[in-house]
This record gives sequence, structure tokens and C-alpha cells, in this order.
Amino acid sequence: MAKVQPRTLSGFMELLPARQAQFDRMADTLKKTYALYGFTALDTPLIESSEVLLAKGGGETEKQIYRFMKGDTDLSLRFDLTVPLAKYVAQNYSQLTFPFRRFQIGKVYRGERAQRGRFREFYQADIDIIGDGKLDISNEAEIPSIIYKAFTALGLKRFQIRVNNRKILNGFYSMLGLEEKSGDIMRTVDKLDKIGPDKVAGLLVAEDIGLTREQADEILKFIAIKGSNAEVLSALEGYRGRHELFDLGLDELKTVTGYLAAFGVPETHFAVDLTIARGLDYYTGTVYETTMLDHPEIGSICSGGRYDSLAEYYTDKQLPGVGISIGLTRLFFVLEDQGYLNDEMNTAPADVLILPMTEDLAPAIALATQLRSEGIRAQLYTEQKKFKQKMAYADKLSIPYVAFLGEDEISRNAVSVKDMASGEQTTVSVADAAAKIKAAIALRADLAPIKEP
Amino acid sequence: MAKVQPRTLSGFMELLPARQAQFDRMADTLKKTYALYGFTALDTPLIESSEVLLAKGGGETEKQIYRFMKGDTDLSLRFDLTVPLAKYVAQNYSQLTFPFRRFQIGKVYRGERAQRGRFREFYQADIDIIGDGKLDISNEAEIPSIIYKAFTALGLKRFQIRVNNRKILNGFYSMLGLEEKSGDIMRTVDKLDKIGPDKVAGLLVAEDIGLTREQADEILKFIAIKGSNAEVLSALEGYRGRHELFDLGLDELKTVTGYLAAFGVPETHFAVDLTIARGLDYYTGTVYETTMLDHPEIGSICSGGRYDSLAEYYTDKQLPGVGISIGLTRLFFVLEDQGYLNDEMNTAPADVLILPMTEDLAPAIALATQLRSEGIRAQLYTEQKKFKQKMAYADKLSIPYVAFLGEDEISRNAVSVKDMASGEQTTVSVADAAAKIKAAIALRADLAPIKEP
Repeated sequence: MAKVQPRTLSGFMELLPARQAQFDRMADTLKKTYALYGFTALDTPLIESSEVLLAKGGGETEKQIYRFMKGDTDLSLRFDLTVPLAKYVAQNYSQLTFPFRRFQIGKVYRGERAQRGRFREFYQADIDIIGDGKLDISNEAEIPSIIYKAFTALGLKRFQIRVNNRKILNGFYSMLGLEEKSGDIMRTVDKLDKIGPDKVAGLLVAEDIGLTREQADEILKFIAIKGSNAEVLSALEGYRGRHELFDLGLDELKTVTGYLAAFGVPETHFAVDLTIARGLDYYTGTVYETTMLDHPEIGSICSGGRYDSLAEYYTDKQLPGVGISIGLTRLFFVLEDQGYLNDEMNTAPADVLILPMTEDLAPAIALATQLRSEGIRAQLYTEQKKFKQKMAYADKLSIPYVAFLGEDEISRNAVSVKDMASGEQTTVSVADAAAKIKAAIALRADLAPIKEP
Repeated sequence: MAKVQPRTLSGFMELLPARQAQFDRMADTLKKTYALYGFTALDTPLIESSEVLLAKGGGETEKQIYRFMKGDTDLSLRFDLTVPLAKYVAQNYSQLTFPFRRFQIGKVYRGERAQRGRFREFYQADIDIIGDGKLDISNEAEIPSIIYKAFTALGLKRFQIRVNNRKILNGFYSMLGLEEKSGDIMRTVDKLDKIGPDKVAGLLVAEDIGLTREQADEILKFIAIKGSNAEVLSALEGYRGRHELFDLGLDELKTVTGYLAAFGVPETHFAVDLTIARGLDYYTGTVYETTMLDHPEIGSICSGGRYDSLAEYYTDKQLPGVGISIGLTRLFFVLEDQGYLNDEMNTAPADVLILPMTEDLAPAIALATQLRSEGIRAQLYTEQKKFKQKMAYADKLSIPYVAFLGEDEISRNAVSVKDMASGEQTTVSVADAAAKIKAAIALRADLAPIKEP
């Protein structure tokens, strides 16, 4: 028979089993963390009507959409989890309770140009808090604490959550009489890390934005405000009283930073950073980016912010919210690439491999059943292979224990257990074997999926 | 602004939060069960090259495929989890360890005609065990024990796993000189439950299959063999010695049924049923179907079997396997429809809602942080609402406890906790509050997602 070459599409991550276990542990850790803060899980369809999904229309993203006809229906694959959330909230408004806190970890699709570390199918891990008409500022303070908790639970230590407030930026630009151009300016300033201040200034005075040199200098001076959070906030106080929106933003930023200590976020992991704008027009308050301190070149690994209107394309209801998104597939790729994955984590498909040494499998099956009833992942190995091959099977899969059950063990109501790491082998009662294996699993159960090199 | 009507595509399940929690609990229960037997998790792409996905070609399914072009690439959404597994195993053969046990719970896509209870996007929950060249029969005996364990863990009690062996059927048809027609015959016999014996006989003697009346009668007599497993096996012994393949199949069936007691599957939940054929040509040994005893009209809720060649379209390697699939979305729909979902399960997004009664949120934040550190899902409620509305929030979301923290509690280093079910409210130390809430969560933590009415 002619064979088709088995292959996976470029830009689609498909992992070998041990790596998959590491990825899944990361996703599970995020789920557990999000759940601790009262977020409920959602799982929306991957396909939506194009009319619904692209209601907002236009933009960079639209070109990347996987869009196609099925019969006479115009369909698109979701390209983020925010638009489906907006649809969901608008559609189910009367049945939801606000503030509505949801998390979703799911695949999204963007037909980007294929290149290393860029994915066309990738997971996003999102949380959002949606208010009905209003949403208290304290939610904006809670978000960085969740980011902190999430990355800490994953095992990452050297990261920093950078926070700004769009009202401060918009207010500042209004002071300069540039409110009309604030969108363009912020998109340009957002490139500061990548292209540096001189080129940003060049773009600001160039024809399509058209600032004066003085205005550009004012802006660069403003976003150059650096220092400890207290120093930055103090410098910002120098601008107070010149514009209402600015003053409001400064109050919000002070509230958010003020609560962070109460939320347990250390000062080392948090910075007020006036260069953060998030190049999206819909953020209206606090904005967040998160960077790995040793890999700033990777950019933000968790971004988001406050918006005033989640679902304006679907409903007249005012639905303000705050949310963040982690690009999990890209993060995993980067972590693997940089050697950050914790290979001490147990990635074996089983905790113990049971080798029956008798014709009758019943005693081995009974042993497996008993171990499983105690929560031990027990695999029976029943293939007709040489002993050495059976041991090699456990070894290749990194299964930590092998249990032998021969006539001798069966007659003594015992089992021989080999610790594959130490090579030590003992014959013990089934209860003792279970206790030993459980203790060993427990020791490794809390190993985080990330270990900084 | 003109609004787009928010809507979800027909045939796509999108759940409200409490239902989603029940669905997720079902999926988690399956994951945990599969993992206990040494299956490793895989997560393959939803999109594959059409050439790869449709290598097998033809068939009913192809018309239902979501197939489209992106640029000049011909893509298809997966319509099951078996073909992507075959591709994966062929592609990664040298890096996998055999027998390779994997589970996958993922969405698949079929553009079926829209009707109630039929889904175009739906979850399958699959396990497969793939051998390299050979695979021991004991694996075929283990599968029903996993099915038994999985449904029992879900809370389902009244179900039956029906087992047959394709070698018995193929051997039997060979005895009648009908091996060439066995595929057609089995597809017809497979309809027995739906259309009854007379119509099956009619189809068998009709032109396109063309059996004699005697042959049709022999077949109906054979598949009419009923009774306890021992009785059916005994009746089958009457055919022994007439065809080698039949005898081999009978031996396999006896081995599989023989081990089931050792695996802890009660006789009540297991039946040898000669009418089970699975209308797919690639099954070659044991085949399984699982029915709800009180809802036979739903058909099989978990099906599968032994196949000799997983990936023949991609590789010359002989990769025999055995696997089953649960159509999870449809099962969930049926369970909801029939009132089988356990509404006593905790579906709230949080275990406790914390209501700060002071201007300064710091004490409430500290309380939330402490409760979370003990694994309690604690949500801060900080919106500016009336007390009654705050309580209504907890009530609507079925959050079991509300914790109040006013000046009085703070000064006493205590917290007032209201049990929303009983209405009882007590002021206790934070440690006592945590213990109380944890105990209450633990009581409900093991509630299965299914409760038979």
C-alpha cells in the first residue's frame, strides 16, 4: 500500500509524552491557581460564525484568521478567548451573576508567518472579571497578585509584573493638547523597548503623527521617569492638578500599588512602568505586562488590563472588565528552549510497573487493583518479552518502581519492589509496598514544572 | 453602534458555568481513571493536512469533514482521535515505548445534519494501547475493567459492557462459506437492535448481499444465542472444531471473560453478546459496546475493540492495538436530558465569599490569602453594593459560605462565617473558619457528577 508521510503542520505544537506531561502540569497549575480566586471555568466553541467573531472587524488579526465556508455558512476559528467571552457574556447576560469571573485555557488560531517559536495553533490561558455597569478598582489590584501567585506556583522566580494606567497616559497627553493623537502616540511609545528613544522620537515628529520636537521631548522625558515604585509615584505627583483624568489615573495607580503588599506581592516582582501602554485602544485603566528578568528579549509573558466595554459589538449593556492572558504554548516553547523545564518532575505514565511472573495473571491483577484503589498509577506489563526487555520498558518510561509477583511472593502474600533510581529491591507486604510507593510519589508530587537554571 | 446578534452555532455545545463545572468534573474523572492504568496524556492538533488526515479516504465520514484551504494548504479538522493517534505513532515511532498507552480527551468535528442531541463539535475521550508487532490478549481483558471503573467513578451504576470477538463472527461466517460477505453481513446484523430480526433476515437475503434463506436462518439462530456468560460460551463450544479462526476467537473470548472477575468487574455489568460487531472493518478481535440499562435507545456510550493495524496508511510497521472511545459531549447531553446530573455536586466558583466591612481592604485580603494557602477557593467581594445584594451574589452562585470581616471581627482577630445552606452564622478564629470550610468542602468533594434518578 502506498504510504502517506505522517507529519504535523508547521506552527502546530505536538509534544512527546514526557513533554506533554510537563505542559499539562503547567496548565493544571494555572487552573488551580485561577480557581483559588473564584474564577469559574468556561469552554467555548473553537468555531464561531464569522459575522459574530469578526463583529469588531478590521485590524491586523483579520488577515490571520482561519476562515472558511461549510455548506453556506461562513465560519472562523477563534483567534483569542476574549471575543468568544464577549459573545458569551452578551448572549447569557441574564443568566450570569456579576461580577462574572471566568478563566479559560484553550487553543486559538492565527495564520501567522511560520517561524521558530511562532505558533498558528496555541493555548491562551485567560482570566477576566466582568462587571455589570461598574467594577471596583480593587479588582485591578487583585490581578497582579494572581499573576504573581500563578508564576510562583509554576516555579518561576525571576519575573517582574510591570504596571501602568492608561488614564495617566491619556491625561498626560491631554495636558499637551494631544488627546486626539494619544492612540498613535501610545502605539509608538510601546516600541520603546524594541527601537529605543531616538527612533521613537523620530516616529513621533514624523509626518503621520506630526508632533513638535518639544512635545516629543516632553513625552520622552515623561516615560523616562524611573526608579522605585515610590520614586515613580512621587515624580508623577509633580504633574497633579493639571488634568482630571491624569489625577484619577494616578489615584488608581496608587490604590493598586498600595494593595499589592497586602496581597503578598513583593516589591521585587512589581514595578510601575510608564512605558507600558499595551498597543490596544480598548484598555482604559490599569495595564499589565510581565517579563522574565533574565530574558527581556522574549517580551511580555502575561499581559492585560482594564477595559470599559467588553461586548459593545453585541449589546448596549456597559460591561467593564479587567483581564490578563498568558500565551501558554509560546511560554512553554521558550521555557523548553532556555532549559527552564524541571526534568525532576515525574513525567512517567505510571508510578509502578507490575511484572507478573506466573502464568495466571489473577494475583497480579489483584495487586494492581489494590494499588490503584490507593491512588497509585499501576500498569500491568503482560507482553511475552524477556525479563531484560521488561525492565528496559520501565526504564525508558522513567517508571520509578517495578513490582514482581512470582510464585514465591504470591505464596508469602508479598511483592518484590525494585526502586529503579537506587536499584534497591525488597520483598515486602502489599501494604508496605503501597506505602513506600505513595511516599515516594508524594515527595515528587509538588515539584513545580519550571526550574530556573 | 449597530449590534451583531451574539449566538452560538447550531450543533456546538456551550454551557453555563454550573453545567460546565459538571462537564469538567466528568472529564477530570475520566482523566484520573485512565491515568491509574498507566495511560499517558496526548494533545494533538485539531487541524491536520487533509492529505494526512484523509489518507484512509472515502467513507461516510469524509462528507462531514470540515475541510478548507488556508493560503495554498489543504487543511481538515480532525473528525476523531484515532487517525491523529495513528499519525502520531507512525511519526514518532522511534521515540515511543511500546506497548504505548495513551489517553486523549479532545474536541472533534463532524458536519452532521443538525438535530437535537447531535453535535458538530464534540469531545471524545479515548484510550488506546498500541503494540509494536504484537499485543497480548490480556490488554483486551483489561479494557472492560477500565470502562467499568470509569463509569463507576462517574457515578453511573446501571450500565452493561457487552463484549464479542470478531474472530468468532468471521470464523462462523467462514463455516458457512460466507467469508467474502462477512463485512456486509456484520454491518447488517449490527442493525438488529434497531430494526429487529425479520428485517435483518430480509436484508441478508436481498439482492446486494444475496444469502440463501437457510444461511440467513443459521446466522439469526447464531446471534440469537443468549443467556448468562457461561451459557453463551457453552453454546459457542458447540461450534468448536469447525473453523480455526472461530476456535481462536472463542479462546480469546474465554480468556477475556475469565479475567474479568479478577479485574473486579461484576457479572451484572458484563455480557457476552454475539450481536455486537461494530460496523467498522478494521476490528479484528474483541469488540465492546456499553449501554445504559435504563436507556438502551441511546445506543452505545462507550465502544471500541481490537485492531491489527493502527497506522497502515503511514507506515509498514505492524501496530496492533485495542482502544475505546466515549462520546463525552453526547453522553453529557443525554445525562442532562434524562436528569442524571448530580446537582448536589459543588458547582460554585468559590468555597467562600469574603465581604470586607471596612474601608481598608487589607484585613480581608489577608484573610483571603490565608484561606487560599489552605486550598480554599476564596473570592473577595469588593463591589459597592447593598448588603442584601452581596448576599444575593453568594446565593445565586451557590457559594456555600460567606465570611464577614468588620471592625469588631478584626479587633478580635476573628471572622464571622455564615453557612448559606443552614443560615447558621458564627464568629470564630480564622483557623477555625478554615477548618470548618475545609471539612464542608471535603464532604462534598467526592460527590460523583452522575446520580441516577
